[in-house]
Amino acid sequence: MSTNQEYDVVEKYNKDTINLSVNTNLLGMPKSVKIALAKGLELCSLYPDAKCSSLSKVIAKHYSDISASQVLCVSGVDDAIYRIIYAQRPKKALILAPTYEDYEKVLCNAGCIVKYHLLQKKDKFQITETIFDTLIDEVDIFFLCNPNNPTGKVINKEFLRKILDRCKSNGITLVVDESFIGFLDNPEQYTARGLIGEYSNLVILDGFTKLYAIPGLRLGFCISSNQELLRRIFEAGQAWSVSVLAQIAGIAALEDKEYLKETHDLLHIEKRWLLTELSNLKIEVWGSSANYLFFPAPFPHVRELLEKDGVILRNCENFAGLDGEFCRVAIKTHQENEKFIEAIRKHQ
Amino acid sequence: MSTNQEYDVVEKYNKDTINLSVNTNLLGMPKSVKIALAKGLELCSLYPDAKCSSLSKVIAKHYSDISASQVLCVSGVDDAIYRIIYAQRPKKALILAPTYEDYEKVLCNAGCIVKYHLLQKKDKFQITETIFDTLIDEVDIFFLCNPNNPTGKVINKEFLRKILDRCKSNGITLVVDESFIGFLDNPEQYTARGLIGEYSNLVILDGFTKLYAIPGLRLGFCISSNQELLRRIFEAGQAWSVSVLAQIAGIAALEDKEYLKETHDLLHIEKRWLLTELSNLKIEVWGSSANYLFFPAPFPHVRELLEKDGVILRNCENFAGLDGEFCRVAIKTHQENEKFIEAIRKHQ
Repeated sequence: MSTNQEYDVVEKYNKDTINLSVNTNLLGMPKSVKIALAKGLELCSLYPDAKCSSLSKVIAKHYSDISASQVLCVSGVDDAIYRIIYAQRPKKALILAPTYEDYEKVLCNAGCIVKYHLLQKKDKFQITETIFDTLIDEVDIFFLCNPNNPTGKVINKEFLRKILDRCKSNGITLVVDESFIGFLDNPEQYTARGLIGEYSNLVILDGFTKLYAIPGLRLGFCISSNQELLRRIFEAGQAWSVSVLAQIAGIAALEDKEYLKETHDLLHIEKRWLLTELSNLKIEVWGSSANYLFFPAPFPHVRELLEKDGVILRNCENFAGLDGEFCRVAIKTHQENEKFIEAIRKHQ
Repeated sequence: MSTNQEYDVVEKYNKDTINLSVNTNLLGMPKSVKIALAKGLELCSLYPDAKCSSLSKVIAKHYSDISASQVLCVSGVDDAIYRIIYAQRPKKALILAPTYEDYEKVLCNAGCIVKYHLLQKKDKFQITETIFDTLIDEVDIFFLCNPNNPTGKVINKEFLRKILDRCKSNGITLVVDESFIGFLDNPEQYTARGLIGEYSNLVILDGFTKLYAIPGLRLGFCISSNQELLRRIFEAGQAWSVSVLAQIAGIAALEDKEYLKETHDLLHIEKRWLLTELSNLKIEVWGSSANYLFFPAPFPHVRELLEKDGVILRNCENFAGLDGEFCRVAIKTHQENEKFIEAIRKHQ
């Protein structure tokens, strides 16, 4: 068997290019995860624990501010988005523009009317008090990404609490997607986890895809104090959604404390280096709180030109509320980051 | 890391018991699959191919009577059931009783009215012409399992064609679940695959869980000639539903021709042995076409009594249309089958 050579089982991209459009952890999959997977292969012949009891306990222990019963594991954040929409059947939803595009896609597929709250260029796409004008009665659900993708802007906890209060008064479910929050220097200052006890209308999405660079395994989870809602989210899709290997990977990842430390150390160094280099090139970065940088395109056709040099940036044209004038670049290894800066310098 | 010892990631059952309630392949996961998985672990750091292009091609080649574009891979047959119901939004559904219980569960969760066609004890639960009285206009979707679970009864292709004709005239989508068809001596005589070209109202469900004993990996697929319906089923759940490792496993499993041959050879021997032994014990088996046997309970409390002896049978009480008077027993290795017969003999 030489499956890996003969067959495509992963998203295709040219191997000679540097792909900065995928914003997963620059360290790649933890070695500890690979070792745990190798040891656990035999278990694929058994049904997974549908409730993911052990994994939920390990997640609760890792975060310390939630309990295992407040965690519902699913097969990736996108699975969670579908399940929440099927469980809640919202008629009208609010999303930011720009934000992660799959909220809109899933809501539209489910026949929901989607309203956009347009973030403003003049605010560098930071959310402002104007959001409260759109959080009105007729909205059933509001999807918020913190830090926001692709802008890299964060919302602090005080502002989140104000949003939650408004949502609560108006019967709006708030979904806060924290897929990238683990990359922040101080995630505790921004996470909504500490608020779930007070707000039964709050669901947090979190995942392993980005922070532990395991998109191929499909693993994410919901956090909420609303047991009835968690039950409905669980029942909105198959019971055995999280594979045995995804459960093994999740447990191994969270037990590997070194990996997260190394991630933060290296990310800090590389981010600083990139910000200095871009500043030297007179490029102003608008958002950099997570593991990617967001900035106005420094020259026309930047994406096409860099692609010719083997460097792939994220195409921002398909984000509602953005045009091609913006770039999102994942922070990767120093060698890759250098190639990106060289390519920018060449064309500027 | 000793994940496997410390944590539960699989369905719990007492390791000292013989579990004949899980009807996966008696050979366990193919070695070829385990080897391919071990080689492919590194690929978990990449996003899966959402379209499962290579796997779909290998499935089409394996079956030879369908094309890759008629295959839609999903993360298990239960994922397919949810997606079909979300894609079709049936108001009224028809299912057999008894049959695989998750059709009912998912349909009820989705707010669909479920009608039961009660199979009769006098027919040993074989489907008969009376089914046509219930295939009426107001039914939107009909779930059929062939061979049926738990009865082990098959429907031949001529009868299937008649059902399909009736469904077609009455605007009913027919879903034929062929999860166990690969265990038949002559699956070609029963599969609906050859009929998809003629019937755009037909969707076949098929999977790797049972035939290749990999329930922990989550892999199944839909087969249909109806491209519009396949597109909607795809869009009814997350795009990246099939993990990289599930895709690798599926390809490796289908390339392992020895495994299926060995399965059939061993299953044939063990089934014959069990049928003879049960016949000697004056137990009449009502259904035995797949890799499990279905028969009336030979004495009261059979399940509880055998469990005390460390042999777990499938509880048939939770199948609609059945009571505890029936047993479903998976055909497993000779040693396990012997223990089962010994336990029966002891109590009879």
